[in-house]
Amino acid sequence: MKYPNNIKKNYKKEISYKNRGMDLENLINEACKYYLEHDLAIIYKKPTPIGVVDVDYKNGAVISKAYFKEPSTLDYNGIYKGVYIEFDAKECQAKTSFPLHNIHSHQISHIKNIIRHGGIAFLIIYMNGCYYLFKGTDLIQFICENKRKSIPYSIIKKLGYPLLFRYNIGIDYLKGIDEAYKGDGYFEDTEDKN
Amino acid sequence: MKYPNNIKKNYKKEISYKNRGMDLENLINEACKYYLEHDLAIIYKKPTPIGVVDVDYKNGAVISKAYFKEPSTLDYNGIYKGVYIEFDAKECQAKTSFPLHNIHSHQISHIKNIIRHGGIAFLIIYMNGCYYLFKGTDLIQFICENKRKSIPYSIIKKLGYPLLFRYNIGIDYLKGIDEAYKGDGYFEDTEDKN
Repeated sequence: MKYPNNIKKNYKKEISYKNRGMDLENLINEACKYYLEHDLAIIYKKPTPIGVVDVDYKNGAVISKAYFKEPSTLDYNGIYKGVYIEFDAKECQAKTSFPLHNIHSHQISHIKNIIRHGGIAFLIIYMNGCYYLFKGTDLIQFICENKRKSIPYSIIKKLGYPLLFRYNIGIDYLKGIDEAYKGDGYFEDTEDKN
Repeated sequence: MKYPNNIKKNYKKEISYKNRGMDLENLINEACKYYLEHDLAIIYKKPTPIGVVDVDYKNGAVISKAYFKEPSTLDYNGIYKGVYIEFDAKECQAKTSFPLHNIHSHQISHIKNIIRHGGIAFLIIYMNGCYYLFKGTDLIQFICENKRKSIPYSIIKKLGYPLLFRYNIGIDYLKGIDEAYKGDGYFEDTEDKN
């Protein structure tokens, strides 16, 4: 998404937040691109949902008024080794715990649905300088068993799977999926071959 | 997508075309909603890709300039009976053949990729008052074996699977998937149970 240069000067706060968000996203987008080019997985970031209000047809369908909508699903989805994959990227600025208000209630329902229908759903969390794959099943279980409004970092470290940044790839999350879902029955055929 | 009322008056041609497009889309969106509510499948229309140029932060992040981008994937994706599903909806005004310029070359590559990775990809074509599920494999084969720039309606009728409009559902395409991919090995577990 391109913002004009002058916005940066006038609205430094908003832009710096946006850029923080784009860092993790960019590293994941790079990985998606790498996986696609190397035919390892087909995973795309869904377009940002935008509500179009005004379109100027005089100048070739230029959108002149629109607004960002809240997504009800997760940001990335696709297919890996024949399995449906969906996940979201979350940067966490807090150091001691991951606030659950980062995930909307309809996204929680969506994660439950995907798992029930045989897919894989998870979060990629960037926290304290590290990247973690946090399984949807662990997230759901934590929410069910706790009344806390955040997940302590100790739990993220204990249950999450560390993801590595690799030069020329970005965040190599397929390796994390292999590790996190090994023995869960999703990739049985592949596991037999190894 | 909401367009202001006055556009309809001024730009009747564009709007009427848009509405034609929305008819098939709406019937499929209705079905997606029904399937979701009845826990039969999780399939969403991807948001329309929009390139944001200007954002007015003074009035709470209102997008003041943007443009529609060309999608490189298909419009709908999700999971059905544990299988990755992706498809596009195409309304065809021509009566004798379906023009292939309706499908971009990167979409063809994308369809091939999905099939190779174990997913299902197809088109829902509305033509001559009927709805057809046209399998991605048949589309690829037709393109490989023919130099034609369109698929004759006779082929659509022969290879396509008719989809029915059902009251309260819309276009019941899951029934079409069951029929079209029966015996193809995608839904083996389900087939055993029947």
